[in-house]
Amino acid sequence: MQHVDTVIDARWVVTVDPLNSVLERHSVVISGDKIQDILPSGEIEQNYFAAQHLRRTDHAIIPGFINAHTHAAMSLLRGAAEDKPLFSWLNDVVWPLEQKWVDDEFVEDGTKLAIAEMIQSGTTCMNDMYLYPEISGKVAEQLHMRTRLGMVVLDFPTSWAKSADEYLAKGQALFEQFEGSDLVSTMLAPHAPYTVSDQTIEKVMQLATDEDLGVHMHLHETEQEVESAVQETGIRPIERLHRLGAINSKFIAVHVTALNEEEISLLSESNSSVAHCPKSNLKLASGVCSTGELLRHNVNVAIGTDSAVSNNSLNMLEELRFATLLAKGFSGDASQVPVHEALRLATINGAKCLGLDTVTGSLEPGKFADLSTIDLSEIHCRPLYDPVAQIVHSASRNQITDVFIGGKPVLQDRELLTIDEKECIETANRWQHRIAADL
Amino acid sequence: MQHVDTVIDARWVVTVDPLNSVLERHSVVISGDKIQDILPSGEIEQNYFAAQHLRRTDHAIIPGFINAHTHAAMSLLRGAAEDKPLFSWLNDVVWPLEQKWVDDEFVEDGTKLAIAEMIQSGTTCMNDMYLYPEISGKVAEQLHMRTRLGMVVLDFPTSWAKSADEYLAKGQALFEQFEGSDLVSTMLAPHAPYTVSDQTIEKVMQLATDEDLGVHMHLHETEQEVESAVQETGIRPIERLHRLGAINSKFIAVHVTALNEEEISLLSESNSSVAHCPKSNLKLASGVCSTGELLRHNVNVAIGTDSAVSNNSLNMLEELRFATLLAKGFSGDASQVPVHEALRLATINGAKCLGLDTVTGSLEPGKFADLSTIDLSEIHCRPLYDPVAQIVHSASRNQITDVFIGGKPVLQDRELLTIDEKECIETANRWQHRIAADL
Repeated sequence: MQHVDTVIDARWVVTVDPLNSVLERHSVVISGDKIQDILPSGEIEQNYFAAQHLRRTDHAIIPGFINAHTHAAMSLLRGAAEDKPLFSWLNDVVWPLEQKWVDDEFVEDGTKLAIAEMIQSGTTCMNDMYLYPEISGKVAEQLHMRTRLGMVVLDFPTSWAKSADEYLAKGQALFEQFEGSDLVSTMLAPHAPYTVSDQTIEKVMQLATDEDLGVHMHLHETEQEVESAVQETGIRPIERLHRLGAINSKFIAVHVTALNEEEISLLSESNSSVAHCPKSNLKLASGVCSTGELLRHNVNVAIGTDSAVSNNSLNMLEELRFATLLAKGFSGDASQVPVHEALRLATINGAKCLGLDTVTGSLEPGKFADLSTIDLSEIHCRPLYDPVAQIVHSASRNQITDVFIGGKPVLQDRELLTIDEKECIETANRWQHRIAADL
Repeated sequence: MQHVDTVIDARWVVTVDPLNSVLERHSVVISGDKIQDILPSGEIEQNYFAAQHLRRTDHAIIPGFINAHTHAAMSLLRGAAEDKPLFSWLNDVVWPLEQKWVDDEFVEDGTKLAIAEMIQSGTTCMNDMYLYPEISGKVAEQLHMRTRLGMVVLDFPTSWAKSADEYLAKGQALFEQFEGSDLVSTMLAPHAPYTVSDQTIEKVMQLATDEDLGVHMHLHETEQEVESAVQETGIRPIERLHRLGAINSKFIAVHVTALNEEEISLLSESNSSVAHCPKSNLKLASGVCSTGELLRHNVNVAIGTDSAVSNNSLNMLEELRFATLLAKGFSGDASQVPVHEALRLATINGAKCLGLDTVTGSLEPGKFADLSTIDLSEIHCRPLYDPVAQIVHSASRNQITDVFIGGKPVLQDRELLTIDEKECIETANRWQHRIAADL
């Protein structure tokens, strides 16, 4: 008999292991921050004594979702910019609002709101790219969200930094600030090909090499971005980045709605990852990522929500549903991104793009206990022939009942444990009253 | 002081009237089965005394959703056919399962499950097309769902009818059965161009003319359907129907993912309607309806969920989200189907296609009180700059708290009032155990 922290019994354990095993009437045993064991629920009593024993009889336990691309703090601008294409959305609404409002307080409150929303909908890890990441990182530790912080780099000034060198210096300081953290770590985040020069990318790559860091960048978000670049530089942005040494196994290309065959091969051969943001791409009419084609070429495709302004939610369950349906509809091939693969995009593939696939992204002993339980007993999930089909196509966010991150419960019986929900909503409402006058 | 049945105070009343008015801190007054008045909540006390007074302080009242195309009873096969294109989905899975299992009991239990799901997610009217419609109609009356029953016609036999003439005779009987009902009425539903002959369509049109009925038909669901028809008949299915007199103001073309410019003009000039089923079309890789283009030509576009087997839910909130995002993404124009229009597709346009727009589909005095309340206080709907943006892009089904159909409460505080939820789930589970062995 071994003493452990938590045992969760469930109707199904959807492991997302290499075989996509779905175990019936199994339990996940959590000890410290790790999954210690997964075994038939009937065998728990003779093996483990748990401080906390949760019985989730109509539920599936699934790996926590990994949001491979977001700008968390922008949740304070949710719904502020509707029905506009990317460049007007950026130039006419988002950038002016950001210029006026974004400071450390905005980032603190916006990131709290975003993480609360993500936890409620089963996300246990986010790849964030925003200004004042030192604040987001503190909020992430406080709310206990596994986080990769983007060390943002731009060639134009913001309230956070004035020059590429200042962004890089602040990025280096950020790296040092979180170097010892189990939960929060860093990744370079040059914004986009059209906002960073070759010289800046060279500096980014130097820092990436020196500190062994990944790089996370918006890329080929629209055809227009690619065409403008070709007119200005003579080459497509991805080729430019390739020449600068950026396209490698630690690179995440965000969006990539416009890729030719050669470019797909380049991403494949370099073992790069793609962060696909289906809802954002649709809402801004940016284009559609060739998810199925990328997967056929063994490119690691993960899923991101992008910000709440271009979505307008941070709900990975909805995002993976859009990813699978869009892949089928867009390719004309209904067999693309089948249900188990859709779940992989939102979990283990996300972990892989962040270099975290040995420690999270699936339910396997030895990995962090980053997981959620989802209640499949509701009318709209019945009958149930395959729990994974139901999760991918039918379930909604409120069916997530419990979430653990690194073994720590952050949502229990739908109640947030690391943040005061009422206070979080009141803070968002205060921002609404301040910002609404500008809309 | 007037005595009325129900008053609902809300933070917003989203009327979907011709001006898309959103009224703040207003109340909807219900008397009998109708909306009697909509006025500022502060003026209720001096004007009305209500038997029931609901205060929904963080909620919007919206018109009930109108599901313009579904096969309700198929909910018992939810999740039984994943990752297959339309013709294999039909021939290899759905038709064999239907042939084995569909009878009056299947239709009764499946329709109950479907209506329960639809009520929970704010739908107050459905346009149903399925075998044993006399059973579906009885269930609809029992659960109090406004329903158009399809008088299904096929040229091949099923367990319900053996020949086109028998389908038509049963359809005529169905029409007579529900002739006096306020809630349930009928519409002709020849299945599809590839399952009904010219002769049968002529008979359908004769009955439509004699009884002044609408016609509801799958049409141009895929390019393949159109191409096969051209090979066999020399003309495209819509042209064939046009020659047979079917394309008129009482015609609903379901799906239409494959339309050329002339065909869009034909639908426009004939004042026909389209029932767009975005999720089903994506899941079966059928193609994509040109929603924005149809609307630009003043075609009345409504939204349907199709069946739970090709979706896998009957959630109009999700369906309208897919409709707006897909219209933007596939056209490359982010201004298409803006938030207010998205809500119109799922409400008043649905009413219009069923010939019910003078009695439902918007919140206006004199119309049936077919409405729902949606709680917008949750974290993922905050801050809130525009309640309609939040409903269209952020809210989820569980935020629907109350639903009225024809003045009668059918969902109150998220509790179903016209059906026993537990019993409904248990019945679905029993079907699951019977059917699962065939998968």
